[in-house]
Amino acid sequence: MHSHNYLPNAFSNVSNLNQQVLKVNYAVRGPLTVLAEKIQNDLLENRDAYPFQDIIYANIGNPHQFGQLPITFLRQVLSICQYPALLNHTHEPWFKNIYPSDVVERAGLLLKDTGGVGAYSDSQGIPIVRKHVAEYIQERDNYACHPDDIYLTSGATQGAKLIMTLLISGPSEGAMLPSPQYPLYGALMDLLRGKCVSYYLSEKDDWNVDIEQFKHAYEEESKKGTNIRLCVFINPGNPTGTCISEECIEDVLRFAKKKGLVIISDEVYQNNVFRKKFTSFRKVLCDLETREPNSDWGRVSLVCINSVSKGQFGECGQRGGYIDIINVPSFVKEQILKLATIDICAPVTGQLLVDLLVRPPKVGEPSYELYSQEIKKIHKDMEKQCEFLYEATKRMKYVTCQEPHGAMYLHPNIILPEKFVREANENNVQPDELYCLYILQRTGICLVPGTGLGQKENDYHVRITFLAKGSEYVERLIEAHNAVMDEYED
Amino acid sequence: MHSHNYLPNAFSNVSNLNQQVLKVNYAVRGPLTVLAEKIQNDLLENRDAYPFQDIIYANIGNPHQFGQLPITFLRQVLSICQYPALLNHTHEPWFKNIYPSDVVERAGLLLKDTGGVGAYSDSQGIPIVRKHVAEYIQERDNYACHPDDIYLTSGATQGAKLIMTLLISGPSEGAMLPSPQYPLYGALMDLLRGKCVSYYLSEKDDWNVDIEQFKHAYEEESKKGTNIRLCVFINPGNPTGTCISEECIEDVLRFAKKKGLVIISDEVYQNNVFRKKFTSFRKVLCDLETREPNSDWGRVSLVCINSVSKGQFGECGQRGGYIDIINVPSFVKEQILKLATIDICAPVTGQLLVDLLVRPPKVGEPSYELYSQEIKKIHKDMEKQCEFLYEATKRMKYVTCQEPHGAMYLHPNIILPEKFVREANENNVQPDELYCLYILQRTGICLVPGTGLGQKENDYHVRITFLAKGSEYVERLIEAHNAVMDEYED
Repeated sequence: MHSHNYLPNAFSNVSNLNQQVLKVNYAVRGPLTVLAEKIQNDLLENRDAYPFQDIIYANIGNPHQFGQLPITFLRQVLSICQYPALLNHTHEPWFKNIYPSDVVERAGLLLKDTGGVGAYSDSQGIPIVRKHVAEYIQERDNYACHPDDIYLTSGATQGAKLIMTLLISGPSEGAMLPSPQYPLYGALMDLLRGKCVSYYLSEKDDWNVDIEQFKHAYEEESKKGTNIRLCVFINPGNPTGTCISEECIEDVLRFAKKKGLVIISDEVYQNNVFRKKFTSFRKVLCDLETREPNSDWGRVSLVCINSVSKGQFGECGQRGGYIDIINVPSFVKEQILKLATIDICAPVTGQLLVDLLVRPPKVGEPSYELYSQEIKKIHKDMEKQCEFLYEATKRMKYVTCQEPHGAMYLHPNIILPEKFVREANENNVQPDELYCLYILQRTGICLVPGTGLGQKENDYHVRITFLAKGSEYVERLIEAHNAVMDEYED
Repeated sequence: MHSHNYLPNAFSNVSNLNQQVLKVNYAVRGPLTVLAEKIQNDLLENRDAYPFQDIIYANIGNPHQFGQLPITFLRQVLSICQYPALLNHTHEPWFKNIYPSDVVERAGLLLKDTGGVGAYSDSQGIPIVRKHVAEYIQERDNYACHPDDIYLTSGATQGAKLIMTLLISGPSEGAMLPSPQYPLYGALMDLLRGKCVSYYLSEKDDWNVDIEQFKHAYEEESKKGTNIRLCVFINPGNPTGTCISEECIEDVLRFAKKKGLVIISDEVYQNNVFRKKFTSFRKVLCDLETREPNSDWGRVSLVCINSVSKGQFGECGQRGGYIDIINVPSFVKEQILKLATIDICAPVTGQLLVDLLVRPPKVGEPSYELYSQEIKKIHKDMEKQCEFLYEATKRMKYVTCQEPHGAMYLHPNIILPEKFVREANENNVQPDELYCLYILQRTGICLVPGTGLGQKENDYHVRITFLAKGSEYVERLIEAHNAVMDEYED
């Protein structure tokens, strides 16, 4: 049966569709990715169709796709949780040879507290996992954290969605979003019909928040009558890799207190830090409350987001994460829970991974050595790849790049030749999109154009993950880049 | 740090919140569930706090929570997919003893096509799984189905959300929803600000769609200027258990064609059928197109929903499902994909379960016997429990109940005594909610009041799953019910 569009139904006219959905631009997995998939299929049919053999999806922070192996401990626990009948063999030598005793203990504990991975859990998340998350945060920041303030999610996206859905419901409601940003936030604002208020990260200042411009953007938009409810920070930054400084976090929190803003801090890269230091918004807020007990810091509602997709786990496909909230009134918590309830529950295996993230094997436990080695190796490899790719940008014409503190991306700035920009304009395509298209066609490397992440006018960037291993593709990138520049330069 | 509400922030006033979220009433996991959890906690502290030992969550179709064991084949495959290092042992006797060869083959195939369960998959879903779903549907209905028309989801909820988000964006847009219904659909309409147009299922006619009333409801609402975009059917019904007859499906499709309605058919209980016969909307639509090739049947856009949470798998916690679409224009498919992309991807293990659902072991394969036995036993047990609970309703005063054809619920009608209704009204609570509260407090059995699912005025129902095993709790329910009726009857 085929699509006959000659008679109307609700789907047959674009004006019948939710115009907010049409409006969304989601660059990370946008039209370039669709083309990349087409090229990959072409290559399956004809290995010689392009001057490369494979697509390198450097547009997405998807570590396992680049051959990063899963951490043994995690998968051992999950394999038992998936097939608890394995526990009938605990006394057999092969079993002891494969599964360390702490794996068995952990799996047993998690199974006991869940009724198995096939049952719906509490909508807020498995209680014991929430307890462990609270303990982890308490240990990280040295301030109390309560399991009631933890919501397990199917990853960072759901966490952001829950909070933004609750605060944004129309064009008079705004959220301050970083530019450049991970485009999820803009996409959610579009879906929720809210007003995006961009604040610029300052490239020349290591992509830090420019607090004066931030305040200015707030004031200007407020004057127009927009009720700005919320501001979003990504720390460490995506795509910038910047660890926001404690001083800057403090400035932002002071402003949020004054204006009654809710803060979302997306901290999914908190364990991917190579230089500088990650400090959670939560920690800074708690410090301030301690130092200034009479300053009504309880006024600042804060939501922090974490995920098992990033860090060293890189378990993107398993969909697990959490939000921790602070200073959120109980009637709001009820509504967060209601929204979580409509989503049903996060995948139970994803929830179990959160448990493993926040309660890794301890010194002296049988899995500790291997676990630590694996985590360290992944961390070190990523740091090396970051440095390597960063050094490579220095060999690319008309390119400057801030060295990231962490995360999984470089976000180089490309001064595109005038002729190139003109050609793009003539073809009704953004110059950086055209650039990414050329690079994809010539190298098989899929990048994200800065346009989709936000940048100043006449400024051009691309986001590239440094997850792909090896140097061959990097040389290919440099060569293709320089060739394009040579072709177009005056 | 505590919540200080004396100074305002965006969260501190209920009027700042998305009023659509506040409006949502989600009865299946509503306030009664919260009370049930509180009682369960009380029981942990004091076994004698209530005249029962445990809460029975008969409000949710969550089979594994009631002790239903997972199907061995599924969990064997998933345990290897989670821990592929197990495949280093394929030649050892213990391995062969635990893992049949077809399990190993299947796990190998799925791992090869995914890059492991820790990598993001395509946003539309793993290509090979979509291919298998298309083959399954083709075999079930005997009509062609294409993998491009399959979207893998994190369960039925996400599937419904994708389509409804695309079609409903404001109060002038309506969807026809069954009454009674699984309350997800009403909740989504509230979130999307759309207009719910109820059509009643006819209790006296085995809860079938009353097509005349359906048409009437459509016309009446259209006259008010509402653009009805969509109608939702749940087949087999939730909470009714009714398999919609082919004749009725045909009537509905004819009407949808005339009016240009998109149809969502939620068919998650298609494998939970004990009496009558399940026929998919897709099959009836394809039959009609074959019989009436010149009648523009391509005008009817149809979306069918399935899930691994129901059927005999009952893998609710793993979050897997799919939608299959037919007669949907490609520009709409692009928007569905965009929305799926913002959600990132369904949990990969959930996607693998979809593969196992649509490609079970075949006759002659090593896992076939055990798999079939397990599936049959679960089906038979459920059928028996259904019958048992249904028979029990006959011993409950003032209760009538349609015997369901399938699904996981009974939806008895209770004629509550006048005095009871009066007491409820005086306490500003719906009579059926008060009834459920009494039953919960006296028996520990958690039900869903019909109010939250939709019912005619002065009609009272409760939804109860027949998943709990044994007869003891049923006796407790009958006794408590009859005692309440005795207390209140005139």
